[in-house]
Amino acid sequence: MFHLMVRDCLGLPHTQTNNKGEWIMYSLEPVFDTLRTAQARLALENRHTKDEALKAVLHAIDASRGALYQANEADILNALKNGMKAALIDRLSLDDTRIDGILEGIATVIRQDDPIGKVRAGWTLPNGLLVEQRTVALGVVAIIYESRPNVTVDAFSLAYKAGCAILLRGSASALESNRVLVRAIKQGLEAGGGIPEAVALADSGSRDEVAEILNAQGRIDLVIPRGGKGLIRRVVNHTRIPVIETGEGNCHIYVDTSADIPNALAIIENAKTQRPGACNAVETLLVHRDIGASLLPRLAQRFAGTVELRCDGPSKAAIGTPPQGLILKDAVMEDWETEFLDYILAVKTVDTLDEAIDFINRYGTKHSEAILTNDLQAAEAFKRRIDAACVYTNASTRFTDGGVFGFGAELGISTQKFHARGPMGLEALTTIQYHIAGSGQIRI
Amino acid sequence: MFHLMVRDCLGLPHTQTNNKGEWIMYSLEPVFDTLRTAQARLALENRHTKDEALKAVLHAIDASRGALYQANEADILNALKNGMKAALIDRLSLDDTRIDGILEGIATVIRQDDPIGKVRAGWTLPNGLLVEQRTVALGVVAIIYESRPNVTVDAFSLAYKAGCAILLRGSASALESNRVLVRAIKQGLEAGGGIPEAVALADSGSRDEVAEILNAQGRIDLVIPRGGKGLIRRVVNHTRIPVIETGEGNCHIYVDTSADIPNALAIIENAKTQRPGACNAVETLLVHRDIGASLLPRLAQRFAGTVELRCDGPSKAAIGTPPQGLILKDAVMEDWETEFLDYILAVKTVDTLDEAIDFINRYGTKHSEAILTNDLQAAEAFKRRIDAACVYTNASTRFTDGGVFGFGAELGISTQKFHARGPMGLEALTTIQYHIAGSGQIRI
Repeated sequence: MFHLMVRDCLGLPHTQTNNKGEWIMYSLEPVFDTLRTAQARLALENRHTKDEALKAVLHAIDASRGALYQANEADILNALKNGMKAALIDRLSLDDTRIDGILEGIATVIRQDDPIGKVRAGWTLPNGLLVEQRTVALGVVAIIYESRPNVTVDAFSLAYKAGCAILLRGSASALESNRVLVRAIKQGLEAGGGIPEAVALADSGSRDEVAEILNAQGRIDLVIPRGGKGLIRRVVNHTRIPVIETGEGNCHIYVDTSADIPNALAIIENAKTQRPGACNAVETLLVHRDIGASLLPRLAQRFAGTVELRCDGPSKAAIGTPPQGLILKDAVMEDWETEFLDYILAVKTVDTLDEAIDFINRYGTKHSEAILTNDLQAAEAFKRRIDAACVYTNASTRFTDGGVFGFGAELGISTQKFHARGPMGLEALTTIQYHIAGSGQIRI
Repeated sequence: MFHLMVRDCLGLPHTQTNNKGEWIMYSLEPVFDTLRTAQARLALENRHTKDEALKAVLHAIDASRGALYQANEADILNALKNGMKAALIDRLSLDDTRIDGILEGIATVIRQDDPIGKVRAGWTLPNGLLVEQRTVALGVVAIIYESRPNVTVDAFSLAYKAGCAILLRGSASALESNRVLVRAIKQGLEAGGGIPEAVALADSGSRDEVAEILNAQGRIDLVIPRGGKGLIRRVVNHTRIPVIETGEGNCHIYVDTSADIPNALAIIENAKTQRPGACNAVETLLVHRDIGASLLPRLAQRFAGTVELRCDGPSKAAIGTPPQGLILKDAVMEDWETEFLDYILAVKTVDTLDEAIDFINRYGTKHSEAILTNDLQAAEAFKRRIDAACVYTNASTRFTDGGVFGFGAELGISTQKFHARGPMGLEALTTIQYHIAGSGQIRI
């Protein structure tokens, strides 16, 4: 590790083997330079030229389906050979519906307003200087992500529309698919009068490549990791480049005494089972002690045979005799901290709203938190005191999503408070610049 | 260094000597806890209660002038004993005018709108969910700063108004002054119905204390370093907490062929000499070759006896015979990279506007850059292509300042693109939160 860091600090190129198994020197330095130059040009493009280029990219990807299936099949065969789990193979796989989804993602980005060149505020100083705050592109962005090939296109199209050059570093397992996608993107940009140099794929497959990206302070303006906790931690802990942390969601639903029980049952079931692997799925249910006996037996009934419940003592007591087929376990400390991403729900009974709020602020990951209640004061207190990107009243946590919120394709969901929070669309890739127009003013 | 980092990672308390010279264990952990709890309460205060508390702080500081002068005198005597330079002693010194300025700073913050609880956007989804984007407080903020005691009060009052608890870590050389100021702040908050625990002074004077702050990831939401390059580098390189880099300003003025010469002379003189130690003072002058012969001899005349010029060959040639009293040197590579903060101006002749823009984007620190021109196309190209927080046309760079821009007291000038850019007022201490109000919606 120490060796790695020292080497990285020196910025030396690393070695890798080429197709013939020979050791070659490899460095992303020229790629960083190309992206920087391309970004300076892209920053000057207007919405019309950017959208025309993106339309051509859409057509180029559409026209590459054949090559894409072939490459994707190679990735899948390789993944099977390496013993990849079925769920991950599924994430990696492309079919016509998924490619249609990818193309629709580009179309949505095309429909979005240009986030660049907005005058967010403007005022005239007493001395006549006109100060304007305008949105400008953030610069060169890198995204480091796990297997899904759709991220390659989503991230590129958002970046391009926001005037940012992008370095894509996908999983080695999706390398062939990503190569075809990036080739199609570049062909499209070429054909549509765009700037093909504004996108690059880091495709050596080497882990050293990630280290080189993380070490490119001053060359890269923002790194976005998208993937599991391990990836995100690695990125956060090994770079001085600004990072937007995404995705980890240990989400809660708190059921207050005044909640509507049929609504609550439907919402809890939806938040847990509609897509348990999503970061906005609920992981821990908090139940006010006065409603536990009415709610929990019916929830147990509903989840028998599908969702495992890990309950604290009072919740277990409220369930009473478990219905047939219910997997019921005693909750342990660790359950409160775990993002199960599975058909498992931790359940805790609380004595007060305050206890629920404190518990969520302690164990939550600042992602999405919900209160189910008909009590206005309780709803207000929850909204004001919960420290999370998205706070829900009487709805499923599953709505935290850039697409659902109307942002078009999504860069990820930020769980940090700095720069961007919650689902990130185009705005997360912008910054501001002050333009000050004078006629000879000096400071006195 | 490695030892330091390992110790920091373990989060162990460090030792320091107390007043009697005995070694004692010291840790900021309880301070972090107190600030976190206080911030949760402060986040619920409304503008009225926050402003009332700030008014009481204003009165308490006003009433502490006696104690403050005594403490400040002790700091100054100590600084003189340690051989501090006159300019720094001056920055440290307080007098009635400066205290009036500090009080006016609080009054300005009181007059500002509450940055918290603004509904920045809101819309209804097709399923009836109401999504609102609201501003909320960033959390617990730490500021690490050099000698000026006014920063203690400015930073506190901005943080308090923005609902943030603040940990102040001033220079050891201003320790006694800062202690009196923070005592008065706490007394004022107490008297005005505020939350005295929302502010703390890290006053052990030990450098380990800074290391402990920088290591408090998860306890502190934002660190702002204010001071010289060395301090800023140290903070950026030794923390995983989000940082806002401030202040370093290697600013340029580019004089285009069409510039009005008397205006240009007045602006250059103002930007260089009105306060050469400020980060928004100009450091390098770029002159189009076609205007050098008309501009530079007159500039040399004006600067004879006050400002040293470090010129490249063509600029020196344009000056011709130097006027009496002018200090004229040959510019070296290093001059382009230096923030002189002194009566020194580097001068370079460029062949084109493009050359000026490229030069600025290469050597500038993304702070404040100006073009002097009457050519609309040149002005537009400069604004669109310069990558800096503030881009001026036909005005002195000296206006980059939160007070001048109308933000009230200033937290510093951000030279980064992430989260905050340019002069930072209250908004830099906020983040957003989505509130989603439903009536039983589930995702299908």
